[in-house]
Amino acid sequence: MNKKAIVLLSGGLDSTTALAIAKKSGFENYALSFAYGQRHEIELQFAKKIAEKFGVKEHKIATIDLRTFGGSALTAEIAVPKNQEILQNRIPITYVPARNTIFLSYALAYAEVVGAFDIFIGVNAIDYSGYPDCRPEFIETFEKLATLATAAGVENKGHFKIHTPLIKLSKKEIIEEGIRNGVDYSITHSCYDPIIEDNKVISCGKCDSCKLRLEGFKAAGIEDNLMYKNF
Amino acid sequence: MNKKAIVLLSGGLDSTTALAIAKKSGFENYALSFAYGQRHEIELQFAKKIAEKFGVKEHKIATIDLRTFGGSALTAEIAVPKNQEILQNRIPITYVPARNTIFLSYALAYAEVVGAFDIFIGVNAIDYSGYPDCRPEFIETFEKLATLATAAGVENKGHFKIHTPLIKLSKKEIIEEGIRNGVDYSITHSCYDPIIEDNKVISCGKCDSCKLRLEGFKAAGIEDNLMYKNF
Repeated sequence: MNKKAIVLLSGGLDSTTALAIAKKSGFENYALSFAYGQRHEIELQFAKKIAEKFGVKEHKIATIDLRTFGGSALTAEIAVPKNQEILQNRIPITYVPARNTIFLSYALAYAEVVGAFDIFIGVNAIDYSGYPDCRPEFIETFEKLATLATAAGVENKGHFKIHTPLIKLSKKEIIEEGIRNGVDYSITHSCYDPIIEDNKVISCGKCDSCKLRLEGFKAAGIEDNLMYKNF
Repeated sequence: MNKKAIVLLSGGLDSTTALAIAKKSGFENYALSFAYGQRHEIELQFAKKIAEKFGVKEHKIATIDLRTFGGSALTAEIAVPKNQEILQNRIPITYVPARNTIFLSYALAYAEVVGAFDIFIGVNAIDYSGYPDCRPEFIETFEKLATLATAAGVENKGHFKIHTPLIKLSKKEIIEEGIRNGVDYSITHSCYDPIIEDNKVISCGKCDSCKLRLEGFKAAGIEDNLMYKNF
């Protein structure tokens, strides 16, 4: 029987690549997505298709309300910035307070219920160097916490491992790795602020997330088949 | 201006005592409760009254769905055990997977939004020695994680402190401490499995939580004014 893994799956480029890597590594995967008051819940539709395509054992969508507290352009009534230079070592306005801590906590609960000790998260410390909860030291500390936090850890059943296969890759390298592992990026989604027209999703092309994606595809010399506004 | 603190407030005996201590310590308090698919949401009504009584600056109720994963008598369709001997160093069936990790993650998000660095949680390592996420080593590791996880930590604005004023107290000592700090325990709630009759809450008197409460009051030589079934 394959080892079980929880894979955090947003439906974006990074988490989809992480799922492909988990599958390639031989895990039986349990995908976990969040309905968390995103400006658009389209990405959940992408996540469902992707989970299906990679044959996950189960796909749970947890509803959480990050709008309760506000404090981010992704969950509150703050405009998503466009055409900004992507600054290194500055925390972007799209940072959601404690988001990855909350996401990993839910993944840990799910892992404990299904009996998994492996959690995959597609964080990246290169392109998103401004996000505190994408850094290796954060992940390492969460890994320690996970074992202390749970019945599994206390009863010495095992130690949790937080897998971050993308943490040190550039966007170009992530795309190349994904393609090697069978990812069709046309079913992934990256835009923070997409437009819906005739049931089609059009990416803005100008938010940080679109810009990083487009630069990644360009550097990899691969065409991005998503639809973009003004292109 | 007083320093701000987030206080996790379930409406139970422990968290109410923690709030009283936070107030006595001079913090401006932001109470945080969860609607998380408890068998009964009565405790939220208790939490509201208590928050008001202690003059908190704000009281947020975050809706989270711990039933998504199941795995506990408190959130799933598993019976709450009655009249059991309370076992030390065994994890009770009422343990909710990763619950305090999830609760503290939300408290951290709230803290980051309001600019607080202090979080109070009424965990207890004596009466609840079976819960992995009530242990001091869990709390210490979460404290480290909090600073790594957040913009506040990265920008060197400060370090998070998780206050656990009850962690080493017996239930008797918690009750005595609460009374010294002005807690009226008749507005708190402990039962895992209460009965509602004529808009009144009747505690079962037989679940672990009721038993610990009753033993605590008895040891303190104080009368518990809650209504109990069969008493």
